[in-house]
Amino acid sequence: MTPDLDLTADVVALTRVLVDLPSESGAEGPLADAVESSLAALAHLSVERFGNTVVARTALGRPERVIVAGHLDTVPAADNLPSRLEGERIHGLGACDMKGGVAVALRLAAELTAPARDITYIFYECEEVEGDRNGLRRLALHRPDLLSADFALLMEPSDAGVEAGCQGYLEADIVVRGARAHTARAWMGVNAVHRSAAILQCLADHEPERVVIDGLEYREGLGAVAVRAGVAGNVVPDECVITVNARFAPHRSPKEAEEYVRGLLPPSAYDEFLVTDAAPGALPGLARPAIASLVAFLGATPRPKLGWTDVARFTELGVPALNFGPGDPALAHTAGEFVPAEQLRACERKLGEWLRSSPSGV
Amino acid sequence: MTPDLDLTADVVALTRVLVDLPSESGAEGPLADAVESSLAALAHLSVERFGNTVVARTALGRPERVIVAGHLDTVPAADNLPSRLEGERIHGLGACDMKGGVAVALRLAAELTAPARDITYIFYECEEVEGDRNGLRRLALHRPDLLSADFALLMEPSDAGVEAGCQGYLEADIVVRGARAHTARAWMGVNAVHRSAAILQCLADHEPERVVIDGLEYREGLGAVAVRAGVAGNVVPDECVITVNARFAPHRSPKEAEEYVRGLLPPSAYDEFLVTDAAPGALPGLARPAIASLVAFLGATPRPKLGWTDVARFTELGVPALNFGPGDPALAHTAGEFVPAEQLRACERKLGEWLRSSPSGV
Repeated sequence: MTPDLDLTADVVALTRVLVDLPSESGAEGPLADAVESSLAALAHLSVERFGNTVVARTALGRPERVIVAGHLDTVPAADNLPSRLEGERIHGLGACDMKGGVAVALRLAAELTAPARDITYIFYECEEVEGDRNGLRRLALHRPDLLSADFALLMEPSDAGVEAGCQGYLEADIVVRGARAHTARAWMGVNAVHRSAAILQCLADHEPERVVIDGLEYREGLGAVAVRAGVAGNVVPDECVITVNARFAPHRSPKEAEEYVRGLLPPSAYDEFLVTDAAPGALPGLARPAIASLVAFLGATPRPKLGWTDVARFTELGVPALNFGPGDPALAHTAGEFVPAEQLRACERKLGEWLRSSPSGV
Repeated sequence: MTPDLDLTADVVALTRVLVDLPSESGAEGPLADAVESSLAALAHLSVERFGNTVVARTALGRPERVIVAGHLDTVPAADNLPSRLEGERIHGLGACDMKGGVAVALRLAAELTAPARDITYIFYECEEVEGDRNGLRRLALHRPDLLSADFALLMEPSDAGVEAGCQGYLEADIVVRGARAHTARAWMGVNAVHRSAAILQCLADHEPERVVIDGLEYREGLGAVAVRAGVAGNVVPDECVITVNARFAPHRSPKEAEEYVRGLLPPSAYDEFLVTDAAPGALPGLARPAIASLVAFLGATPRPKLGWTDVARFTELGVPALNFGPGDPALAHTAGEFVPAEQLRACERKLGEWLRSSPSGV
């Protein structure tokens, strides 16, 4: 049975209802059902469903179209369900990342029957897992027409402020080889784990750069996220694989980031460098009219987005995009995540005002 | 059906029959059956069976008793069965480690009906796996009377020469801790893999010692055999475990070896040092009369045994012991292992002569 979502309820109450509808990546069905049916009941929206991604649009013939997007999925639970209210904080899985933002978008979808801009609301699946499953990516592949807009807002947690652009990422396996031998005659082999010390020390010593773009400081990152080696307890290991994760400022392409990382490593210290995943970042584009307009309207001081978000996808599609949503991004994916009620209300109020305001009036 | 072993056959033919009777550790049953029934047919031996370990003894009231021991099991096959003869080399699983040695011992058991020394032949199970399953260890626990002797010879591959004593070993997990963080904000965490670089560099830089005892050089070893860390692709890892394997000369106890290894590592570089397995080595004891006697008789120049063998077990039990068997020890556990026919014949001849000779005559 599809539970009812009361979109006229207070945004705090709605957030708690969403948190209490579990939707780990791949299991968003019940939540997508609830979102779809509650939006389908609204006469001013036309609703379409793709897998567990729900798209709802106004078609008022306005001069501008804005996308308001949020993902429905969460990382796995960490003993943080059901939701609970502590003073002004809503705790629980996904409260911060990003059911608070979804609640704000759902409230606006119900409330704004005649906004000054046409709006495409997108509630999508599988943002927290490998890129192939991402609902927004699938929409871009199969229904790019639905992603056509003048501007996109991602309701990702940004402390109810504007986080502009986003950093790119690169994941690679660095393979260090050696030669097996019995440990009783270790000198007859080459220990791949010992050889790896040089790579690890290089990563440990590296001071990531701080890159300033449009006045925003993007703090890069580079480090090992995994290392594995081992044949048997009495065998000198002949291979060690170090998995590195790099976060790079949006002035670099993934290819440039790869060259940058390779350039840090002594070539004699490893045998292969295999890129396993990568995504470009997004430049903040604060000078672009659509972005400048919203930033000015909100009176916000933009901050850089350090993690990767689907802002990069919109940027690639040629749609200027910003992160603007409730919740501290540093709490995302933590067991203790919460979202402040005040930020939910502030986001709903400010975004509602902007969407009601005439584009030419800014 | 128990296959027949023809103990009057040539030692080369017998070695091939043994190789062609697979006996990976834990599956020595058919081979133990064959060994037991062929020895039970000999009137001068009394035979007992314990699991897949077979003990056969003379009881001639001689002034000295000698143990001649070999393990029946092999490591898993590596596409090296059945046996094949190439010129003077017998190839196949276990040919070197140590069915060649077992064939020599079986030939002597059949041939020496009235040796000058009483002999206890031990053919035992599970030498190639964890120590708890070792047939000789089980015999020492449950029937120590059968291990009482003046001297023990292990037919382990020693290139038909004498390898004296053996090195001990120590296996330990070195745990390096950190603090998790999202890789987009890596500076909020502590990367345990990066911290591990200091330990790995220390292992890479270490020059193992060469320890001379009774004129024999024991070349020690210390190195990482495994390393593992990794939480998720976007998480700074909070733990890295480095497994080290140390081979130490027999002048150190396992406790001293542990202190030695710990003393090499900067204390601030790791959080825990957990010993997971250890065994003492065995001093060569070349001055002990029983050992000096055999070495003199063979006219051999003793070499040090670098791997661990059950010589250490006999030494702990107070029984002087030596390794003396056909096959190059460096070929043990390799897919291409073989044993030279000439070494099989030499071992059979020399050992037979010594066992026939009067103890007082040396």
